[in-house]
Amino acid sequence: MINLDQYIRDIPDFPKKGVVYKDISPMLQSPEAMRFAVKTFIENLKGEKIDKVIGVESRGFFFATLLAEKLNAGFIPIRKPGKLPYKTHTEAYELEYGTDSLEIHQDAIEKGEKVLVHDDVLATGGTALAACNLVEKLGGEIIQCNFLVEIGFLKGRDKLKNYQVESLLKY
Amino acid sequence: MINLDQYIRDIPDFPKKGVVYKDISPMLQSPEAMRFAVKTFIENLKGEKIDKVIGVESRGFFFATLLAEKLNAGFIPIRKPGKLPYKTHTEAYELEYGTDSLEIHQDAIEKGEKVLVHDDVLATGGTALAACNLVEKLGGEIIQCNFLVEIGFLKGRDKLKNYQVESLLKY
Repeated sequence: MINLDQYIRDIPDFPKKGVVYKDISPMLQSPEAMRFAVKTFIENLKGEKIDKVIGVESRGFFFATLLAEKLNAGFIPIRKPGKLPYKTHTEAYELEYGTDSLEIHQDAIEKGEKVLVHDDVLATGGTALAACNLVEKLGGEIIQCNFLVEIGFLKGRDKLKNYQVESLLKY
Repeated sequence: MINLDQYIRDIPDFPKKGVVYKDISPMLQSPEAMRFAVKTFIENLKGEKIDKVIGVESRGFFFATLLAEKLNAGFIPIRKPGKLPYKTHTEAYELEYGTDSLEIHQDAIEKGEKVLVHDDVLATGGTALAACNLVEKLGGEIIQCNFLVEIGFLKGRDKLKNYQVESLLKY
């Protein structure tokens, strides 16, 4: 049993004044903490079969390939516009000011495939919901959305109410 | 034995006209191909001990965490400016037009640690050399630079002549 909270570092005023950023770098540096986190993510899936693991750009990539390997699943990156080279679908989402969007390759998921959506942090849930919408546009079935860190007061879980949501650490 | 070349897709005129982009998405979707690639990367290290694996933003992250896990090493992301929240070192490198730069956390590597530098593609070698310079600024010893794909005619290997360079696929 490892207390993962010890591997998260608070960075005050990043990326802007008044925000306390949860820096996962100490966890990434620790093979023991990484192993424990991956093991816990897998346990939280309770044996559900997964065909594809989505990692959301770019910190979502850190764990998504590890989870895909453990689940014997394919890894699918969801990326910022213009990064994916093949035919894509695009989904916009709201930011504090303005909008941004995410893309997925059109051949990333086949109809009926079982999908795990992963990102490092669940904040407002805007990017995660956009990722889920892209998966469903391709006919994928979302089994779970999981996150390393959940920032509770931003209520991202409410936005993802149609999905099973798991997070390893809640603040 | 898997022919990894079958999992690389040519995308003509991406990111700009006249360039043929090597898209690794089909490989990422295949657990068998991923397993074989990771196994080959590890074999190419010939048992060298590695303390830290560097992944260069952002496609370098895909394999770097997998390699770190197999090597029981820490994972260190090298990122574009402004993305890393803690104290950083910065290294500039030349692009076709202008310059860009990369950052590493100042506490990412301890003096004398043995480091593997990974990125998905070796092209001109500019980003890989900048990554190596950042590692050495922190006192790390670079054991190897490895890449999934090497674009031979761009001669990135010449720029990395002080290091041992391995790539799984050469074009």
